[in-house]
Amino acid sequence: MNPDESTAPALPPITRLTIACPDQPGIVAATSQFLTRAGANIVHSDQHTTDPRGGTFFMRMEFDLALDAGQRAELETAFASEVGEPLGMRWRMWDARRPKRVAILVSREDHCLLDLLWRWRRRELEIDVRLVASNHPDLREDAESFGLPYAHIPVERNRKQQAERALLDLLLPERVDLVILARYMQILSGEFLRELGAPAINIHHSFLPAFAGAAPYGQAKERGVKLIGATAHYVTEGLDEGPIIEQDTVRVSHREDVPALMRLGADIERTVLARAVRWHCEDRVLQAGETTVVF
Amino acid sequence: MNPDESTAPALPPITRLTIACPDQPGIVAATSQFLTRAGANIVHSDQHTTDPRGGTFFMRMEFDLALDAGQRAELETAFASEVGEPLGMRWRMWDARRPKRVAILVSREDHCLLDLLWRWRRRELEIDVRLVASNHPDLREDAESFGLPYAHIPVERNRKQQAERALLDLLLPERVDLVILARYMQILSGEFLRELGAPAINIHHSFLPAFAGAAPYGQAKERGVKLIGATAHYVTEGLDEGPIIEQDTVRVSHREDVPALMRLGADIERTVLARAVRWHCEDRVLQAGETTVVF
Amino acid sequence: MNPDESTAPALPPITRLTIACPDQPGIVAATSQFLTRAGANIVHSDQHTTDPRGGTFFMRMEFDLALDAGQRAELETAFASEVGEPLGMRWRMWDARRPKRVAILVSREDHCLLDLLWRWRRRELEIDVRLVASNHPDLREDAESFGLPYAHIPVERNRKQQAERALLDLLLPERVDLVILARYMQILSGEFLRELGAPAINIHHSFLPAFAGAAPYGQAKERGVKLIGATAHYVTEGLDEGPIIEQDTVRVSHREDVPALMRLGADIERTVLARAVRWHCEDRVLQAGETTVVF
Amino acid sequence: MNPDESTAPALPPITRLTIACPDQPGIVAATSQFLTRAGANIVHSDQHTTDPRGGTFFMRMEFDLALDAGQRAELETAFASEVGEPLGMRWRMWDARRPKRVAILVSREDHCLLDLLWRWRRRELEIDVRLVASNHPDLREDAESFGLPYAHIPVERNRKQQAERALLDLLLPERVDLVILARYMQILSGEFLRELGAPAINIHHSFLPAFAGAAPYGQAKERGVKLIGATAHYVTEGLDEGPIIEQDTVRVSHREDVPALMRLGADIERTVLARAVRWHCEDRVLQAGETTVVF
Repeated sequence: MNPDESTAPALPPITRLTIACPDQPGIVAATSQFLTRAGANIVHSDQHTTDPRGGTFFMRMEFDLALDAGQRAELETAFASEVGEPLGMRWRMWDARRPKRVAILVSREDHCLLDLLWRWRRRELEIDVRLVASNHPDLREDAESFGLPYAHIPVERNRKQQAERALLDLLLPERVDLVILARYMQILSGEFLRELGAPAINIHHSFLPAFAGAAPYGQAKERGVKLIGATAHYVTEGLDEGPIIEQDTVRVSHREDVPALMRLGADIERTVLARAVRWHCEDRVLQAGETTVVF
Repeated sequence: MNPDESTAPALPPITRLTIACPDQPGIVAATSQFLTRAGANIVHSDQHTTDPRGGTFFMRMEFDLALDAGQRAELETAFASEVGEPLGMRWRMWDARRPKRVAILVSREDHCLLDLLWRWRRRELEIDVRLVASNHPDLREDAESFGLPYAHIPVERNRKQQAERALLDLLLPERVDLVILARYMQILSGEFLRELGAPAINIHHSFLPAFAGAAPYGQAKERGVKLIGATAHYVTEGLDEGPIIEQDTVRVSHREDVPALMRLGADIERTVLARAVRWHCEDRVLQAGETTVVF
Repeated sequence: MNPDESTAPALPPITRLTIACPDQPGIVAATSQFLTRAGANIVHSDQHTTDPRGGTFFMRMEFDLALDAGQRAELETAFASEVGEPLGMRWRMWDARRPKRVAILVSREDHCLLDLLWRWRRRELEIDVRLVASNHPDLREDAESFGLPYAHIPVERNRKQQAERALLDLLLPERVDLVILARYMQILSGEFLRELGAPAINIHHSFLPAFAGAAPYGQAKERGVKLIGATAHYVTEGLDEGPIIEQDTVRVSHREDVPALMRLGADIERTVLARAVRWHCEDRVLQAGETTVVF
Repeated sequence: MNPDESTAPALPPITRLTIACPDQPGIVAATSQFLTRAGANIVHSDQHTTDPRGGTFFMRMEFDLALDAGQRAELETAFASEVGEPLGMRWRMWDARRPKRVAILVSREDHCLLDLLWRWRRRELEIDVRLVASNHPDLREDAESFGLPYAHIPVERNRKQQAERALLDLLLPERVDLVILARYMQILSGEFLRELGAPAINIHHSFLPAFAGAAPYGQAKERGVKLIGATAHYVTEGLDEGPIIEQDTVRVSHREDVPALMRLGADIERTVLARAVRWHCEDRVLQAGETTVVF
């Protein structure tokens, strides 16, 4: 059931450029002039400034330009010296035709994992799933039915460091661009995140910052909220505190007990996580301090 | 612009019965039998049990029965002895044709006040607004344009007790059934609430329990949430902690600065507060510990 | 991957009673008295009247009462003569522990089918899926991976009648309670529906009555709507005209081309269909002329 | 209660440029270079192409540049010859500090009118309301309480042309930039629209194209839809057929009768109309054939 790449239509040679820099006059002109001189057609552009006087400027451009590897390297070098450095930019160019290499971590809940794999199969997500890893054996059959390797790495009490080591030994050789925590119920250490060197996206089963931590649906029932939600965010050392990428809510009432909240919440969780992964993999999400700009 | 009561259509003689008691077999039968024998037609009924075995049972019935004051008192006495006491009920009957007597407290923001008064004028709310009181003079003209008295009761530092006393001297003679805090930016003491002896509904400008306390839109911007919300709840001594009646959210993005969040939030605040007031005044909201059942 | 029934918790002996009759005083009392005398505890009840004076009354009750097959038959006979006939009711009792026997018809789109099967596997739906049938061979592997038989019944031009006959020969021996059209792109004839003798639920990929018929996403793009939707409805002879059970919408903009609308719409379609199936199978949906009451 | 302009903060000298042209390489570069050379800082930019190969390109830029009237005329002349004509653009520059001159037409329903006037008073809308006109006398007091002239222009059977003439005699001297039909229940002729020479925005009380024409809430009840909606669109000669600017929906059920649908719908109508007016007046809405691009 692995997606059959051979039937995919030829994608146009789109490159995505993401930029963050101090706001100042001339950024759009300098960038678009550079690209036009290079022969590119800018097919999409979004920008945002936190403040036109002294704020930070964010931009994402898509341009259409056929490049081989050498030409791409040349273009990047020229952009750095002519535009990026003079304007103090953090910037990056992404080949839209290269899907992100992804690892998915799960525990026992299947809904987020299956939804991601199903969307991958339908080509809704620009990802290349390399493996599924879990601290539990439960979802092996599901992962393998999509032709994916499944690594069971138990996390024993007081031996978390060893488990993280085993996980890194699995992930680093795959050179993953993104790790997705699809209801992985373990906290990752700062050491792990630093050594991983790639972003990780987590789905938390509440509308953060409400109900951080464990058992959010139980907390929601106890507080008597009239909406429950889910939050996809980048993983940082602080539990449930990284920059939020996407959130959504669904209406509930006194009629729903905790299992019903979990059932309704599962639908929101998988939708919110899929959107966040999609947007991240389309290079639409720029970190802005503790928050995100999503173009 | 005061609503002209003379043009209102004659309302049918609906009584609303609200019940809470330990769940046990026979509650619906005993209640409906009693009402049917009394000649009533049950036109609407809602019920909820927290657990059919050992939980609490909540019910709201609307029945159609013409009663004068003496007959109503007799019906209530009979219900108490025949149904209410044997089944351990907290119960109450409400004449649907008598609108609740309401006082509205405001500070400087006009949106919730104007929305309530406009819905009152349109007869969307079953309320009889008696007065508007405020710790600021700003909204006098708005209240008076609806034919309402406006009491300016400043709350000076260290003289809060005196202000609450003045407020009570205003509210108690009006025998209000409900106090609405329509963005009233003062905390009411437990003594005030006890002496008031009527429920109070507050609108908090966030999706509680996220961003309790002051400046929730600023907090929301800082945290980078992708939805903002509002919460209507009964007022208790704990700040922003009473039973939640209604909540809603609206999608936002990095584009909205704090004033834009306040503008979008104002629309949610007035909608959520109006719904909570409407449901309360239709006797649809039953308190269930720290939460509510909304029929 | 077939759900393992042996691990399901024992369900309480809940019976569901659905009623429609001319509104008149005493319906709730007569029904609840009958059930209470029979030893039942009414654990849930919903009612609706289209008009307390001369309208139609709808009710759904859940009661807790252990019955063997003989006792159930006796109870139904007694209810008919003591309550149902005197009050002119259409009524039915359903054993909540017996899941509905279901057949799913599909064409080429997998999203609705997979979502239903996944929810079935998670025990979110009270259904007993008997088979999947399709006019195309494409989804065989998906159905079989859930342990289900897959019948490929092509519908050839001018031979539709034969195809419907083959479908009936498959469905009738299975005594299905419900047929789900999970993006089955063929119109079923009135003869088929009559001989089938069971309700069928269809998912239409638009917010009906807007964009009935073929290619609704193309129609939506052309008209420039700002929301797209999906509609689950009972199937009648009129195309896309049966009583609506559930609908939902999602916001779109000029940015989405038709394939993007189809992708966003697929999420709404599967959610709306799953809700409609869930509610139908919990006996929450009562037909009221050309519309539905959903308790 | 007329807004007191004297207390408004000084607005930065923002100009908005809207563009539509055949897509081709170099549009962004040519435009941003021109503006940068003119000394402008581009503070916001949005763009959209219907197809990077042969489609139509839409762009909206906000730039910060202090200009007196003469300088503005010079800039426009230069832009036309250097950028606009070579690239085949339809384009326009708008001074963001000049609010649009607006006339509001109403019939008997007050909710859309009051909501617009209240938002105008709160400075949520960049409009300069010149007058309110109506075919009924009912809302005079409301309009006048905001300090606005109210013209009652009855539309008698077979004398519609005379009424439209009277309306034009009122509107043309005011040089209005926009006419808002805030539940104006008369159809405007093509002759009227052409002579008016300014766009008109209508709010239709359904989710178009469902339930065009009269009594949409009655139609919605009869069809049994589970959501009702509202649609703001530009007015064209075809009834309820102009390009859609904004839509929204709200969930309903069998419980709501037609008056309840009208009440719930009123909240959606006023919200949707306010958003459409806001976006139009911020020059965010570009017509794209029968549809709109909303930046």
